Amino acid sequence: MINKLTIIGLGLMGGSLAKALKAQQAVSEVVATGRRVESLERGLQLGVIDSYSLDMAEAVADADVVVIATPTLIAEKIMLELAPLMTPNMIVTDVASVKGNIERAAEKIFGEVPSNFVLGHPIAGSEQSGVDAATVDLFLDHRVILTPLENTSGAALSLIQSMWEACGAEVVRMDVAEHDAVLAATSHLPHVLAYTLVDALAQNGAAADIFRFAAGGFRDFTRIASSDPTMWHDIALANQAAILNGIDGFSAHLNKVRAAIASGDGDAIFATFDRAKRARDEHFLGQYLARQKKSPSS
Amino acid sequence: MINKLTIIGLGLMGGSLAKALKAQQAVSEVVATGRRVESLERGLQLGVIDSYSLDMAEAVADADVVVIATPTLIAEKIMLELAPLMTPNMIVTDVASVKGNIERAAEKIFGEVPSNFVLGHPIAGSEQSGVDAATVDLFLDHRVILTPLENTSGAALSLIQSMWEACGAEVVRMDVAEHDAVLAATSHLPHVLAYTLVDALAQNGAAADIFRFAAGGFRDFTRIASSDPTMWHDIALANQAAILNGIDGFSAHLNKVRAAIASGDGDAIFATFDRAKRARDEHFLGQYLARQKKSPSS
Repeated sequence: MINKLTIIGLGLMGGSLAKALKAQQAVSEVVATGRRVESLERGLQLGVIDSYSLDMAEAVADADVVVIATPTLIAEKIMLELAPLMTPNMIVTDVASVKGNIERAAEKIFGEVPSNFVLGHPIAGSEQSGVDAATVDLFLDHRVILTPLENTSGAALSLIQSMWEACGAEVVRMDVAEHDAVLAATSHLPHVLAYTLVDALAQNGAAADIFRFAAGGFRDFTRIASSDPTMWHDIALANQAAILNGIDGFSAHLNKVRAAIASGDGDAIFATFDRAKRARDEHFLGQYLARQKKSPSS
Repeated sequence: MINKLTIIGLGLMGGSLAKALKAQQAVSEVVATGRRVESLERGLQLGVIDSYSLDMAEAVADADVVVIATPTLIAEKIMLELAPLMTPNMIVTDVASVKGNIERAAEKIFGEVPSNFVLGHPIAGSEQSGVDAATVDLFLDHRVILTPLENTSGAALSLIQSMWEACGAEVVRMDVAEHDAVLAATSHLPHVLAYTLVDALAQNGAAADIFRFAAGGFRDFTRIASSDPTMWHDIALANQAAILNGIDGFSAHLNKVRAAIASGDGDAIFATFDRAKRARDEHFLGQYLARQKKSPSS
């Protein structure tokens, strides 16, 4: 049970966390702070938070847990502002999609990442953004990755883990570099590819026709290109090295597929498509079976 | 009203067409032929067809409409077999995703594409395949593109148009080259990219972890990589030139985005992501509003 939770940056993530914890009665008081008073006012109207303050010092005073829920690059700046306000009894966590840049920023500000700062990343989202899009079940059955460091306090880690578990999430621990590489592959790279494809087509002279005849496959494939561009701009810069690595691996593979199509090498084309289908089906079918197995006892 | 409809190759497309026409009482008799007796037998069990014959001559005898519903490359071979069986009263159409190769194959076989052969492509599908996946509403509110040639019979064209309209589809006419370019951009290229990404990740040493932490965005983005690899192998070869063109346009754009990320050019990254989001939102929101507008009167 958290007595006072302060959310810095009230949007989809922070709002959904507040809703879920309130629904589970896992928090007594939720306070928010941020720069956009409209979001804070809206959060109050919606009952997502109990109060807000534009003054960060006031908002975080006596908080048990402070969640930095701003876009990635702003999170770095927030830490600078938060540093003098942190007390030993306050546990700080974040929800940013990249962990390496947060770790580096914290090291710059504090010398080393404070033991009561737990780096975290809930793997959940939506192409919608803002507190209006917040839902009570955004994290339900989703994974939250925590990337504790050697000096991270066991008590702080355990409290943040409980907080996410109260939202119905499964918490997994991983090291920072592994997290950033895995997320680059499964999330950041697909976003870059989807944005790139839609932008390339939109600049085509026949764009209207192209979009007009797009079917369900295109709709799904490009859904993530409707994500918040500010957030993804931040992620592209924050996880630069791992994303460049992902783009290069993808491009090298695409060149091979291109060569197979150009030379009419049907066997190579089929082998690629077939391996991909098997890998995807096996993965998602595996997940499906695991859920089926889990259901009766849960 | 079609008296006898013959489907060559009974799978998702042919089966769904038969179901829809039967539901609308727009056909009296549906006969199927093909090489896989299991599919034909299953179609009969499911009531999708009224009878079948492994002998194409028997199956198409006295048919008003013959639909070639095999994978793209097999459609070329089917035409060769069908040529001596065609009569002036028989209207032939196909459902292949690429039209240029079908046109070229027909020219090779017949000298010119017969006036009673209407090239067609219903823009509908599923990552499922086979007659078991056939549904009555696969074509409902979907577009069907017909690509008539100069000598195509007006009566034949009009009958095939009515057939698809009876399934609830909107029929659009387009020329062959335009069709193949538009489909390369909106469908064939996305499939190639999705297959390529999943295959690249599956070959990564950390594949298990990568897939384990994949979230909803990845699932949607890669859904089309679960499509039938045989069908997409055929399409990749049949629409070679337009797909290579699409890959090259995409790769050039990806190189620009890569350069922007590598140089930390936040403005260029944001501009790309923002343009893509606007283009996609405008397109799909436009579609949504058009449907809303249409609903009250339909």
